Amino acid sequence: MVEIIVAPNAGFCFGVKRAVKLAEESSRLTEEGKKVYTLGPIIHNPQEVERLKSLGVRPVGEEKPSRGDAVIIRSHGIPPDKERALKEEGFEVIDATCPYVKAVHEAVCQLSKEGYFIVIVGEKNHPEVIGTLGYLKECEGKGIVVEKMEDLEEAFKHERIGLVSQTTQSEKFFKEIVGELALWVKELKVINTICNATSVRQEDVYRIAPQVDVMIIIGGKNSGNTRRLHTISKSLNPNSYHVETSDELKPEWFKGVRKVGITAGASTPDWIIEQVKSKIEEICEEHYCSC
Amino acid sequence: MVEIIVAPNAGFCFGVKRAVKLAEESSRLTEEGKKVYTLGPIIHNPQEVERLKSLGVRPVGEEKPSRGDAVIIRSHGIPPDKERALKEEGFEVIDATCPYVKAVHEAVCQLSKEGYFIVIVGEKNHPEVIGTLGYLKECEGKGIVVEKMEDLEEAFKHERIGLVSQTTQSEKFFKEIVGELALWVKELKVINTICNATSVRQEDVYRIAPQVDVMIIIGGKNSGNTRRLHTISKSLNPNSYHVETSDELKPEWFKGVRKVGITAGASTPDWIIEQVKSKIEEICEEHYCSC
Repeated sequence: MVEIIVAPNAGFCFGVKRAVKLAEESSRLTEEGKKVYTLGPIIHNPQEVERLKSLGVRPVGEEKPSRGDAVIIRSHGIPPDKERALKEEGFEVIDATCPYVKAVHEAVCQLSKEGYFIVIVGEKNHPEVIGTLGYLKECEGKGIVVEKMEDLEEAFKHERIGLVSQTTQSEKFFKEIVGELALWVKELKVINTICNATSVRQEDVYRIAPQVDVMIIIGGKNSGNTRRLHTISKSLNPNSYHVETSDELKPEWFKGVRKVGITAGASTPDWIIEQVKSKIEEICEEHYCSC
Repeated sequence: MVEIIVAPNAGFCFGVKRAVKLAEESSRLTEEGKKVYTLGPIIHNPQEVERLKSLGVRPVGEEKPSRGDAVIIRSHGIPPDKERALKEEGFEVIDATCPYVKAVHEAVCQLSKEGYFIVIVGEKNHPEVIGTLGYLKECEGKGIVVEKMEDLEEAFKHERIGLVSQTTQSEKFFKEIVGELALWVKELKVINTICNATSVRQEDVYRIAPQVDVMIIIGGKNSGNTRRLHTISKSLNPNSYHVETSDELKPEWFKGVRKVGITAGASTPDWIIEQVKSKIEEICEEHYCSC
């Protein structure tokens, strides 16, 4: 039997995977006669949104939910007053806020309690940041969002700054802001809330590629992060192949093979990964692999 | 009468001025038959060290102090066990440690108590850093000195880092280290202990030069920080002059003048500033200035 190792951080990040799983599970509520909605598209992948629609889970906007229907909060999160309003309107609220985003909500409140003025490094209009600002207001903290260097001016008026980041913030800009602030304020406490999904995905490849006979990287041929995964993998294991779907798998890659590794870029849904895994098992059952 | 404004941050920084003043005051102990020593040259200015010698205050090393003599701790500070040893040996210890350096000693202990692993951005062999490490050990804290990027490796093993800086650290390197650390550790608390002597000296010029008729900048003609003060001053007030000593003052600069500003670069002792001030008053008494 061939052994297949799927990288733990393959494809969507942890928070998105979890949100999709919650959406899938919520689809059973339709059996109770409820309708199930997501507050905006649950991920930026149209096929995946279509697949969920086929299970009865659709974004709010296409239809207006009624009292008693279920509403799923996306991985980005929402402000707490919005969540309360949904409950008061009689919706069943399913919270798929990413735990890493919840950690940002907790961090701004913890820092506020410690007396810090809050700086959130992020995009002012990003749903995640809007949610975090809501939590900051809720715990009576004060703070600003910094999306360009000039935004720091307001922060310089405060002696003690507590800093967090939008989870998907660029590391380069984060470093610049932290360095500048540390220089000008009396005390700076940073809780780094950047999610390291991209780097852990790469770390998986560094770990798995050298220990398998063949490494399969799934993702769009024009996806930068997938191509980088393939480049890293090829440097560690020459039998590394980049495919978009299971149709591209070639039986001859697996001749005499005992161990296969699989990973996927950030835009690849789990079911595409599953299809690739099943196809490899199928090829191996046809005796191409080593037994 | 001419009004003369001496910039509050002219010449030596606050800590050095204070140490020199303490050394001067300690010279009275020689009247009690004690000898007075400084632990190393009190400032990096030979004329000033010579002047203090003439008052009976000389660096240890030229002579060995005996029990009962006074020993002055320089503005850099020393480790607390060294200070205790001096007292146990029977010396009268006069502590001229700069209050900004004392603030670093307090900061490392405060951060240690809060459970942080300490990073001191500074030079490993600098007397100030050696003193700070002594205080860190005294309060049972753990930490390292970072003088180049590679030194950070040890810090990355810790989740919560408390960071301080040698008071005379370069702002550029400090920013780089803070940015890098914030990215890789879970929590970073920075207490910025860089002394802003250079920047406050410049701020004085921005404030004083526009409100006086003549601005005098004292300092070595080859001193970069003095030349910068002169450049800033000239941009705000064309009647700005750079002199090394009072001998270079020209009476015609002060014709009809009511208000004169004075500042000095970092290597200029107070007594040279005083000489310049007296000379201006003298010129004005000879009726060159406005009355």
